[in-house]
Amino acid sequence: MSSPEIDRLIQLLAKLPGFGPRSARRAALHLIKRKETLLEPLAASMAQAAHSVRSCGVCGNLDAADPCGICADDRRDRATICLVEDVADLWALERTVSYKGVYHVIGGTLSALDGRGPEDLNIASLLSRVAAGGIAEIILATSATVDGQTTAHYISDRLEDMNAEHIANPGANPGADRGADLAAGPSITRLAHGVPVGGELDYLDDGTLSAALKARRPV
Amino acid sequence: MSSPEIDRLIQLLAKLPGFGPRSARRAALHLIKRKETLLEPLAASMAQAAHSVRSCGVCGNLDAADPCGICADDRRDRATICLVEDVADLWALERTVSYKGVYHVIGGTLSALDGRGPEDLNIASLLSRVAAGGIAEIILATSATVDGQTTAHYISDRLEDMNAEHIANPGANPGADRGADLAAGPSITRLAHGVPVGGELDYLDDGTLSAALKARRPV
Repeated sequence: MSSPEIDRLIQLLAKLPGFGPRSARRAALHLIKRKETLLEPLAASMAQAAHSVRSCGVCGNLDAADPCGICADDRRDRATICLVEDVADLWALERTVSYKGVYHVIGGTLSALDGRGPEDLNIASLLSRVAAGGIAEIILATSATVDGQTTAHYISDRLEDMNAEHIANPGANPGADRGADLAAGPSITRLAHGVPVGGELDYLDDGTLSAALKARRPV
Repeated sequence: MSSPEIDRLIQLLAKLPGFGPRSARRAALHLIKRKETLLEPLAASMAQAAHSVRSCGVCGNLDAADPCGICADDRRDRATICLVEDVADLWALERTVSYKGVYHVIGGTLSALDGRGPEDLNIASLLSRVAAGGIAEIILATSATVDGQTTAHYISDRLEDMNAEHIANPGANPGADRGADLAAGPSITRLAHGVPVGGELDYLDDGTLSAALKARRPV
């Protein structure tokens, strides 16, 4: 059909999420027609990202630096860890500009269907972070899906086991003695369920609405 | 939010057709997570396309070679030129594997609204190709839109003017003396209107249906 260079470009573009063969052809043509303004800068940006972006050794965030910008930022509250499934969730929380703690990206959910167990997720490193002490709160911000909630439940159990062990044998973890509220290990919280801001009640599912009703607050 | 490398990648991906900020973020993450299998090959393929792909000097097709693979192919019928608006249309016709002539990509349509006149399109080079002789047929395969049909009409007029001049002054074009059917210049045709193959009559617009009725053929 067209030259092998263009065919290969279309083939690779078709692997982007939301792209099929038709949209990949359209994108390839769009790119080739904008060689200086888009194709060359995008190729350079991709090469740059491939070269420099890596997983943060502490939290699993993606960044050119390791530890990442968030873990390295002194103004962040390092005693609060927000556990998220994916870097996309971390980005979503960062866009709110309302969270000032640090993160832990576990890289997915437990899933019996897809055969993902605890060892496939970034959970052991979370437990090590907690065992090292100094953590006051862990926010379990997994998705409100069955798999997300199962994962949150599993991690919450593991953290509670750790707390119990720590209480039985406090000498094993000298770091946790710093604050009185840390004596029993970090508190474990989850995001609130409720009516989305700007959402109409009429369009809301029953589960969310009843959760919002149960968690009602004084005005 | 994230590192400048990732931000820049998202910004550029958002310029792809059909992509917005949200899908660009998703694509960026998808790419970074598939560094070896997708991000690096795609960056290399884009750099390769940016370096090697250019417009064919004869027909305006995009290819790594100039003249392009189609213009250079001896098995193609060079006496038949199919005029198309865009390289995407050329690709669509090539996918049918039923056209064996060559092409001429004019690069858009005339448009009073967008201020595109004949000098903005690749029309002069078509007239030179025809003037050089040896062309038996020109298929006007512009879109069946108002702008596409206006463009086809304009080009058809220009070609008929050329034929008239040529008849008045045959000595001026020695190349056209080769065949008897070329004496009056190339014949000008257009694609048939009708029922799309696999299409249901019920869903067809009135204009197409009446065109299909008018152009009915013996079984």
